[in-house]
This record gives sequence, C-alpha cells and structure tokens, in this order.
Amino acid sequence: MSTNTSGTLFLIPSALASGSEQAVTTPQVVEVLRRVRCFFVENERSARRFISALKIGVDIGALELYEWHKRSDFQSLDAPLKKLLSGTDFGIISEAGLPAVADPGAQIVAWAHRHGVAVRPLTGASSIFLTLMASGLNGQSFCFHGYLPIEKEARSRKIREIEQAARQGNAQIFMETPYRNNALLDAILKQVEENLQLCIGVNLTAADEWVFTQSVKKWKQSPPDLHKKPAIFILGKPPA
Amino acid sequence: MSTNTSGTLFLIPSALASGSEQAVTTPQVVEVLRRVRCFFVENERSARRFISALKIGVDIGALELYEWHKRSDFQSLDAPLKKLLSGTDFGIISEAGLPAVADPGAQIVAWAHRHGVAVRPLTGASSIFLTLMASGLNGQSFCFHGYLPIEKEARSRKIREIEQAARQGNAQIFMETPYRNNALLDAILKQVEENLQLCIGVNLTAADEWVFTQSVKKWKQSPPDLHKKPAIFILGKPPA
Repeated sequence: MSTNTSGTLFLIPSALASGSEQAVTTPQVVEVLRRVRCFFVENERSARRFISALKIGVDIGALELYEWHKRSDFQSLDAPLKKLLSGTDFGIISEAGLPAVADPGAQIVAWAHRHGVAVRPLTGASSIFLTLMASGLNGQSFCFHGYLPIEKEARSRKIREIEQAARQGNAQIFMETPYRNNALLDAILKQVEENLQLCIGVNLTAADEWVFTQSVKKWKQSPPDLHKKPAIFILGKPPA
Repeated sequence: MSTNTSGTLFLIPSALASGSEQAVTTPQVVEVLRRVRCFFVENERSARRFISALKIGVDIGALELYEWHKRSDFQSLDAPLKKLLSGTDFGIISEAGLPAVADPGAQIVAWAHRHGVAVRPLTGASSIFLTLMASGLNGQSFCFHGYLPIEKEARSRKIREIEQAARQGNAQIFMETPYRNNALLDAILKQVEENLQLCIGVNLTAADEWVFTQSVKKWKQSPPDLHKKPAIFILGKPPA
C-alpha cells in the first residue's frame, strides 16, 4: 500500500503520567525511538521530556521536532512532509497517550494515506482504553464522545443523549478538562438515572491510579474529588 | 476503593500475533507476570504460549489457570474468586489483545468492583485502537460495534446504520470473524456510498501488518484478499 521511496510514519504513544515512562513503553517503541530522528509533536517540551525519561541514549538535541496541534496551519508542515515523502521516517508524538485518538495527529495520518506513505501504529498507553478494560462495562460495543460541551445547557443535553445510549447497553465514554471534572461529575450525579453504572478512571498509569465502577446512586453517597486529576468517565450497564 | 485484605485483579494484554510477544509487551506487564501465579484465561493453551514466548523465566507448569469464556458458567469461578477475595493476586488474559474489550473478562471485572477488589488495567496491544490511530479518521469521536450480524439481511441493515452514523463524521469501527472478512468487505463495497472513507487494518503487530484508508470507490477498483486474516474495519470521513 506504500510507495517504495517514501519514509514510514510511526504513531508513537507517549506516557500518561510522569514517572511511568519506562514501565509502559514497549521494546518496539524504544527501537523506533532509537532510530527515527524527525517527529511531528503536539508539544516540543513534553516530547523531549518523554524521550529523555526513557533513558535509551537518544541525543535529544539532534532531533528535528515540528509542532502540530489543533490550532496549527497544515501548510506549516510543508517542508517536513516533503522530507517524509522523499524517504525520511517520521514519528508523531502527542502530549499524552495515543496520537490521533482524542489527540491531534489524524490530519497528518490522512495526508500520509493520500500520498501512499506507510503508517505504522505502535502499542502504548491510553487512559480511554485502560479505563474501558477495567470498567466491567460493555467492551463489546461502546462509543467515545471526547470532551463534553463546556456550556451548561449544551452539556446537559449531551449528558441526556449519553444516558439514553447507555440505557441501550453500550458503554458511553467521555472526558473533561481536569479542572472541570468536579462540575461534570456533579452534573452527572444530579441528572442521570440512579441505577445506571458509572465508571471513573483517575490518574491512569500513575502510582495513585484507580478505576472504579458503581451505580450513580452509590457515587452520590460519597463523590470523589476529581479536581485537576485526569479522568475518564464511562456510563453503562453491567454485562448480562 | 479496595478492601485491604483482597488481592488485586490485573488486566493483562496478550500479543496479537505470534512472534510479536516481546516487542509489544511493556516492562510493567513483564513485572506483573513474574509475580502473579493465578489467572483467569480465555484459553489455557494460548495463555501458556504467550507467557512462554516472553522468555521471562516463569515456570509455566506452576501457574493456576482458570478458563473463562463467553459460554462459561460464572459459578465455575467460585473457588478462584474466593481466593482473590482473600488476598491472592489474579490476572485476566484473553486470547488476543486487551481482556474485556471485544473479548471476555468484563463479568469478572464487574464482580471485582461489586466486591471492592482493586482492578489494575495494564497497557498493551489492541488491533481496534492500533487501527483507529492509524486510520486518519475521527479519533475524537468514535463507536465500536463489535462483530456484525452473520445473517445477510441483518448485516445489511447494520451496515446501513453504520454508514449513516459515519456520514455524521464519527468513526465507526467493526469487525468480522476472519473467514467471513471477504464477504463483509464485498457487502460494504456493494452497499456503501462511494465517497465515504474506509480504513482496513490487517494482521496488526505482525511482520506483514498494514493499515490503509481510502474511499469506498477506490477500494472497489482493487479489493484486497482478507480471507482468514484478522482485520478491523472503520468507516468515516477524513478530518476537516
């Protein structure tokens, strides 16, 4: 599916939590990072910090990093994309977890497919999928909604839509910017039917990570403080 | 969230492709496998083969494996669940990839949450998420539908439903038993609007893996042979 002359585009998962880099990075990712010198990155500093924390002998100063985030202009990537096309391997590294899943990167991947560049996704940490595995909810059929709307009325409508879908039995996954987590949890606990199951996954891969699932009713009795803690929410029903 | 006396339930990803075990397994999983002796497994033989292929010095013969798959009776797990509750750590290993995501395990996890047992999901390979990352389609909002119906009319209806959702812009992920992949691809190519994008991910993590996205129209011109190859399908639109 790829032309013979272009480089390969590697999708490189980064770590979710500082200190977990070595524990969650596969030998395959280490091997690619030892070899690839050019990267599209969501944030230069965190990409350098991630590679550096792996302690695999990469000369960080010699890397070519091209920032790419949701506000970037795609034309700014003109030079590196030409370089990729003419044979240089590139990686994509987003700020936390899997590039192009709830993170930037998909536009570069789509460009690669249009130009016959081989795309190779590498295994790594994702708070979304770690929480889903550990939820005990329906991993046979699920939807991810990304970040919920900020505006209160729009958020409330979206929660109603998610609740309705969760009642059908499919796991409904969503998230929020960490400093708004408590407001979102509050809205869920006020609004959602008490018998539905709510899974919350917090600080995944960090030393103090936890994932726990119980009914909305039980969460109401002692809601956790999620302020500024990265969290994933899943609404659903327990498996039959 | 856990009681102090119970063991921990680890969700242990296995490899997707024979020969890839060492490349895609994180140091964290290796550390847990060196320590944990009791496992719920989808299939005894493949669990042993996976651990054995890692070459990490585990005495395979000394492991306690309890088979658990979708046709199992939950009461058959009575003895090991009691053991978990009274302090022994357990792992769950499914046949390929992440336990409890398009694989058995969720009922055991749900039981753990009901009994206050700590659940720890570990990072690893998933053909679903590797294909999604590499699709260039919408990783900000997506649905996973699992295996499509076998019966032709029901499958056709489900494909129509998926197509309609894909037109809204959300990535729609689904799969099929490998020996029916060509029939599914044929149905998609006959039925789905030509301008929608179809991503196909094949043999993920194997030496001959590939992921490629193009319009249904282009796939029609030279449909790949997917017979007996593990594949993930994603219908969607390219990012704006």
